[in-house]
Amino acid sequence: MTFSALSRLECPKCGLTHDPDQVIGLCPCGSPLLARYDVPAVKLTKDELAARPPDLWRYHELLPVRAPENVVTLGEGMTPLLPLPRYGREIGVDRLLMKDEGLIPTGTFKARGAAVGVSRAYEVGVRRIAMPTNGNAGSAWAAYAARAGLEALVAMPVAAPEICRREVKVVGARLHLVDGLIGDAAAYVREQEGYFDVSTLKEPYRIEGKKTMGLEIAEQLGWRLPDVIVYPTGGGVGIIGIWKALLELRELGWIDGPLPRLVAVQSTGCAPIVQAYEQGLPESEPWPDAQTVAFGITVPRALGDFLVLRAIADTGGTAVAVGDETILAEQRRLAELEGAFVCPEGAATFAAARRLRESGWIHAGDQVVALNTGLGLKYPQTVPL
Amino acid sequence: MTFSALSRLECPKCGLTHDPDQVIGLCPCGSPLLARYDVPAVKLTKDELAARPPDLWRYHELLPVRAPENVVTLGEGMTPLLPLPRYGREIGVDRLLMKDEGLIPTGTFKARGAAVGVSRAYEVGVRRIAMPTNGNAGSAWAAYAARAGLEALVAMPVAAPEICRREVKVVGARLHLVDGLIGDAAAYVREQEGYFDVSTLKEPYRIEGKKTMGLEIAEQLGWRLPDVIVYPTGGGVGIIGIWKALLELRELGWIDGPLPRLVAVQSTGCAPIVQAYEQGLPESEPWPDAQTVAFGITVPRALGDFLVLRAIADTGGTAVAVGDETILAEQRRLAELEGAFVCPEGAATFAAARRLRESGWIHAGDQVVALNTGLGLKYPQTVPL
Ligand SMILES: Cc1ncc(COP(=O)(O)O)c(C=O)c1O
Ligand SMILES: Cc1ncc(COP(=O)(O)O)c(C=O)c1O
Ligand SMILES: [Zn+2]
Ligand SMILES: [Zn+2]
Repeated sequence: MTFSALSRLECPKCGLTHDPDQVIGLCPCGSPLLARYDVPAVKLTKDELAARPPDLWRYHELLPVRAPENVVTLGEGMTPLLPLPRYGREIGVDRLLMKDEGLIPTGTFKARGAAVGVSRAYEVGVRRIAMPTNGNAGSAWAAYAARAGLEALVAMPVAAPEICRREVKVVGARLHLVDGLIGDAAAYVREQEGYFDVSTLKEPYRIEGKKTMGLEIAEQLGWRLPDVIVYPTGGGVGIIGIWKALLELRELGWIDGPLPRLVAVQSTGCAPIVQAYEQGLPESEPWPDAQTVAFGITVPRALGDFLVLRAIADTGGTAVAVGDETILAEQRRLAELEGAFVCPEGAATFAAARRLRESGWIHAGDQVVALNTGLGLKYPQTVPL
Repeated sequence: MTFSALSRLECPKCGLTHDPDQVIGLCPCGSPLLARYDVPAVKLTKDELAARPPDLWRYHELLPVRAPENVVTLGEGMTPLLPLPRYGREIGVDRLLMKDEGLIPTGTFKARGAAVGVSRAYEVGVRRIAMPTNGNAGSAWAAYAARAGLEALVAMPVAAPEICRREVKVVGARLHLVDGLIGDAAAYVREQEGYFDVSTLKEPYRIEGKKTMGLEIAEQLGWRLPDVIVYPTGGGVGIIGIWKALLELRELGWIDGPLPRLVAVQSTGCAPIVQAYEQGLPESEPWPDAQTVAFGITVPRALGDFLVLRAIADTGGTAVAVGDETILAEQRRLAELEGAFVCPEGAATFAAARRLRESGWIHAGDQVVALNTGLGLKYPQTVPL
């Protein structure tokens, strides 16, 4: 068996397929591309998998890197899936679990996308990368670029978490600050020459890294799926990735039955996906004057919005917006009851879980996995001194 | 087989043994106590161990918690052991590895001591704990206390990392700031009534949690030991714990041959152990006007100093002091070459490794494990904006 079962890149909009072993960004039609695998050729057993080291490369057959020596790793993956008994009892969800993506290099789940994205970019010959970011993705890609010996240029809103600037600088990447939002940073990146643009969904492999959250949740639950997965949604790659992972596991024959209902959580200060969901639209409208304490999910218009909306529709999920005050109150409550200091984006998923239980959308007996996408440590100002 | 093989508490100074199933701090003679296990009764095989979840509780037979339901966990342990090929080449140590204790709840290895210490305190009936701290231990113990539902009081120098204050507050612990060093914080804690004092080595189980770093290093290297382990030393519990772990593994028959040479690293701004080592003394003298950017190792006089010095002597190790400028330069260099943003205490071990290679104490072919004890994120001001 080969290391990776990657077979082709496929366009989810126009249906065209592309050779993956070249430097490629979007489909000529403008859509993101999705990696496809020769799943029937994967001969792995669950027992073989169980014996592998606890990082995301244990799923290498379903990842796009072809040669083990191209793997760029800082030890990412197999983050804890923790029961939250006290907090769960308080909100009436006894079977509540937190997937804790704080315990990963650079402190957010962005490390997954960066590990796989940088490895694969390196493998197909890229040596200089550039990206716009709300902060955390920039920290992660800069770190993995350093580890791989790639040059990196990161463009970030001035309002992004200050700590992310320092993370970009310490690893020696070029940092450009933008007085605006992530879209303005993206415009700056488009003007730069000689870099491969690794913006969210503009290259096909970040999502492959992020999908490992879905693979891990399934493995950690013994290949029985939860009823609901709640995700803080900005660019949408995390939730699309989890959906993709579960579809691949189903194709592999390792899971069956209905998929978990996927919930996209946004802030009331920037809720384009929620609005599109509520209006039954297939795509979102740009959100004006976007602003929220959950800075990572300040994405006024996501390139992959249509895929997020499909993931929700396909799984019988929903989309929910929560306010900044609720987010901060929930962050505090979770810390007091469970000792976990989560980031505001993570706290938003708990606020959503509480709300959805109140409305009856989540049932008392449901097993619910809430994603904490990063460390509270990256947002120190959310806790008053 | 029972969950824990804990048999007794033993005094390494006067030799007395004590019943472990009671609330107990120091030996009446004033020395810290060490947990002892009925090692021959442990029937675990390496294969059974390999199949367990990747957290420190996989070693439960060699941990003091008797009942699984008393385990208080946030998913700590099995942190990465990463090769550092570029940085290693630069300093002439090709087989250099970093044990990365940043990927653990609260972002430092202190989580290990807190997880086991809080679990066991809860098990023997403690409900209120108090401790002095240089910051990171306070964050960790406050988090695990919240998870366990214990009340916690944390006393911290005003100069400790600000982020640690916020971590203590967010989980609802009581925070007391002291205008002085950790010894002054300890004096404050001694005056408080109704709390169990969980200061470094004043209770016997923190070290049991920290020793799991040693167990993991051995397991991750396939039960073959490295030549050298380099550790940033403050209170000394980490290095004593690693030594203790290796002795227990030897008793279990899982490792043999010489132990790795243990290196205690301190800052030139606070180097009592290095001074005692150089002068051939069995104990250290209090260090006057202690000050270093590696705040976690600002311990002018450690209760367990004699045990650190024994660990060094027993393994043919050494003790090294490095300056703050070197620490910060090494932090930067490691980040640029490997993408890892380590804490200053962790950076000190790399500075020491470079120095010991230059002096020839570390040989070119040696396999060297350097401990990064925490996230650089917890010390943002070490990277200029
Ligand atoms: C902490 C955090 N959570 C969630 C998100 C949103 O992720 P996605 O783009 O996958 O929707 C981000 C993106 O920056 C983030 O930093
Ligand atoms: C990051 C860090 N490294 C090292 C140490 C020293 O640990 P020990 O007390 O085990 O010597 C500390 C203690 O506060 C710390 O916070
Ligand atoms: Zn297309
Ligand atoms: Zn004694």
